[in-house]
Amino acid sequence: MTAENKLLAAIAAVTGGDGVLTGTAAAPYYKDWRGRYQGNALAVVFPADTRQVSAVVKLCAANNVAIVPQGGNTSLCGGSVPLKDGSKQIVINLSRMNRVRALDATNYTMTVEAGCKLESLYAAPEQADRLFPLGLTAVAPHCEIGGNLSTNAGGINVLRYGTARNLVLGLEVVLPDGRIWDGLRSLRKDNTGYDLKQLFIGAEGTLGIITAAVVKLFPMPKSVATACIAVRDPAAAVALLAHLRATCGDMINAFELISRSCLELVFRHIPDTCEPFSAQHEWIVITQLANVLPAPLDAALREAILSFGAGVVDFDVSTDATHAERWWRLRKNIAEAQKAEGVSIKHDVSVPVSLVAEFLTQANTALHQIFPGIRIVAFGHMGDGNIHYNISMLDTVQNKTFIQQREHDVNKIVYEVVRELEGSIAAEHGVGQMKREEIAHYKSELEMELMRKIKQSIDPHGLMNPGKVI
Amino acid sequence: MTAENKLLAAIAAVTGGDGVLTGTAAAPYYKDWRGRYQGNALAVVFPADTRQVSAVVKLCAANNVAIVPQGGNTSLCGGSVPLKDGSKQIVINLSRMNRVRALDATNYTMTVEAGCKLESLYAAPEQADRLFPLGLTAVAPHCEIGGNLSTNAGGINVLRYGTARNLVLGLEVVLPDGRIWDGLRSLRKDNTGYDLKQLFIGAEGTLGIITAAVVKLFPMPKSVATACIAVRDPAAAVALLAHLRATCGDMINAFELISRSCLELVFRHIPDTCEPFSAQHEWIVITQLANVLPAPLDAALREAILSFGAGVVDFDVSTDATHAERWWRLRKNIAEAQKAEGVSIKHDVSVPVSLVAEFLTQANTALHQIFPGIRIVAFGHMGDGNIHYNISMLDTVQNKTFIQQREHDVNKIVYEVVRELEGSIAAEHGVGQMKREEIAHYKSELEMELMRKIKQSIDPHGLMNPGKVI
Repeated sequence: MTAENKLLAAIAAVTGGDGVLTGTAAAPYYKDWRGRYQGNALAVVFPADTRQVSAVVKLCAANNVAIVPQGGNTSLCGGSVPLKDGSKQIVINLSRMNRVRALDATNYTMTVEAGCKLESLYAAPEQADRLFPLGLTAVAPHCEIGGNLSTNAGGINVLRYGTARNLVLGLEVVLPDGRIWDGLRSLRKDNTGYDLKQLFIGAEGTLGIITAAVVKLFPMPKSVATACIAVRDPAAAVALLAHLRATCGDMINAFELISRSCLELVFRHIPDTCEPFSAQHEWIVITQLANVLPAPLDAALREAILSFGAGVVDFDVSTDATHAERWWRLRKNIAEAQKAEGVSIKHDVSVPVSLVAEFLTQANTALHQIFPGIRIVAFGHMGDGNIHYNISMLDTVQNKTFIQQREHDVNKIVYEVVRELEGSIAAEHGVGQMKREEIAHYKSELEMELMRKIKQSIDPHGLMNPGKVI
Repeated sequence: MTAENKLLAAIAAVTGGDGVLTGTAAAPYYKDWRGRYQGNALAVVFPADTRQVSAVVKLCAANNVAIVPQGGNTSLCGGSVPLKDGSKQIVINLSRMNRVRALDATNYTMTVEAGCKLESLYAAPEQADRLFPLGLTAVAPHCEIGGNLSTNAGGINVLRYGTARNLVLGLEVVLPDGRIWDGLRSLRKDNTGYDLKQLFIGAEGTLGIITAAVVKLFPMPKSVATACIAVRDPAAAVALLAHLRATCGDMINAFELISRSCLELVFRHIPDTCEPFSAQHEWIVITQLANVLPAPLDAALREAILSFGAGVVDFDVSTDATHAERWWRLRKNIAEAQKAEGVSIKHDVSVPVSLVAEFLTQANTALHQIFPGIRIVAFGHMGDGNIHYNISMLDTVQNKTFIQQREHDVNKIVYEVVRELEGSIAAEHGVGQMKREEIAHYKSELEMELMRKIKQSIDPHGLMNPGKVI
């Protein structure tokens, strides 16, 4: 019996035989969902509870086998799949750990296991008249909360509720040596020393495995108003957002910017979509107010938009969910519509909200100058300065060659503008394998050194998700 | 010239002679503001900018002299004063670094230096129609933002805006070896690796010196309604808060619980205060709604309270600021009124909001059983589960002896209840010197080990604020 087989047998003794997959049965777990990253491993293991995770990690550590924590495997950066040489790696998939352990409606908290699908976490709070506000429309049915927390996921409602980090009160973590850290507190104030949970949130599984979390719940809004607004340009959108926040306050749930190129893609590929206005406009914004008080919000939203002035070209406000959903379809289907036209060079960047227009101007100008014939598909969460900025050739036949030959140059131009504006080259999707070398280039050497020190102190043998982030 | 004198001369060459105080001139900086902690040091140094902080820290590190970072020195736990044996310590006071470096009204951010007095940070945003929501009524004129962030300060508005940690987007930190980490980002989404700023927030100066920060601003509320509510008991207050959040939502700014014993102290010692209702009540709550939309909120607040039911004994709602201030005087003067009656055994604890009543019942019962003749003064930020829970003898003559002989026993009883309810023994004031040994007892050994690893990796020579926290 080889050492590997002995290890797998010992793991199977912990999880049961059906908790360990190898060979072709395991293959789907070694590939990311977009098919960009394909790795290999000794096995994928499905522990049923935290004790099993702990036991499996202890076995791996004793055998010097690295661990790749995996949730729904929807990473866009190759963070949740093993490396190519998988002879010394095990994937630990948390999907079996999918219980809501507790819901405290009075404390506005919920204790969930890492393997809960994000979409499955909306119903229980809703029955208790509470909202869990993490909104990732594209992947909610597939992604899992452990992955959401490990990548500090963002999404559409960050403007109001913050990123995943802001939604966590407590964590349970299996450390690289297999010990369990029970930090499952549900406190809103706790200053008894260093806030250790912050280390594991957003670390993409490189410091430990998040097995459970206490997350915050919020009052359930009872009144919603949505607006579709044609704006003169992104600068008008930036100013409009600041104006709406100043006039409508914390009720703004979302503020999404969509360029003409996105709309055209959607109209072409997504059925049952059409121009939101009688005229065509270069830039539109979809924004939403929501309030717990049941009084209608449309008049306030309308008045706030009207008081903004010349930057608004046209707009409409609705409190009707079906009507609003027609607008939201334009935003939510951009990724799907893009896919229909083939691959593109994607960027997930952020800048201060006040500099979003500046970013678009500088990056667009630089790229169009150097690469004639490109199409820039820009959209995103303007409310938090996060722009998805994707580049391909208008002539799709040239696309593959263009990406193969020029991706590096395109990235460089975009990231230099981001650097200039003190932005981030990995706003909400994380680093994974994709941007591991790039962050070393765009972050200060001192910052990389501090990250390495933290990694070294928590995972001295480098067993947690090697080749990712750091 | 001794080594110490050489060091002080080298520091004076950096800061200028008036930037270094020794002897009696320095003495006020070695004592905490409540007079409970008295230490000693070689000098107190007042750098004028981040480069000077860096240079001074480098000199200290080269001479193996420890550093005590100090802001307004309003720590309640001895965190900002040197230890008794100060022969190898220097206090670095940040008060000279008090500029607002930038305010970006469109990005809703402000860049501030560590030495800015908290109270001085309200005016500039207000002029731009923005709110900086960190509210520490008792100390705002004296405390400084660097200290607020280093202790993850809380206060009255945490329910709505979070603790200091939630208000930070970026930090500038001088590390224990004197290098400057420029993490002054103003991004709402940034997932390029570990979130290093989280390490320094709440670390009480044990990992580095925060010299500047980018903090979030918020829309300025235009409409405020305040309610004073007599509730049957703390359990009714707990349920009322959950009900008000569910009906009035994120507009709740504050929810403060006050016991009869607090009210009586205030009536006795603070002029111009009186019963809020015609009858006497055992427990009252002061809560406030605020909204950016200018529509009056009193009707909604009144209706929400009325719909709660039997737990509310009496209440009144007002939109008049003068009227509301009369109620707030009852809350804001508790500490002052207590002081007039001499010392007490103070606790700053938190539990899940849903367990605040349970905490009070268990702790009150246990204490009254063992210590007849005590007075329990309980009040605090019920909105975030944080209770200030202070014990003294009703007969003040016995107080001093009682505290000397029984403080340890009283703490033990209170903290065991906190532990039972999975709460925190240091909710918002921090650890400092005061609770350093106690947290080691009430936190898990694993958690203490992780904290030591972090400390060791960032400050291997133990030069940053020794004897505090860890």
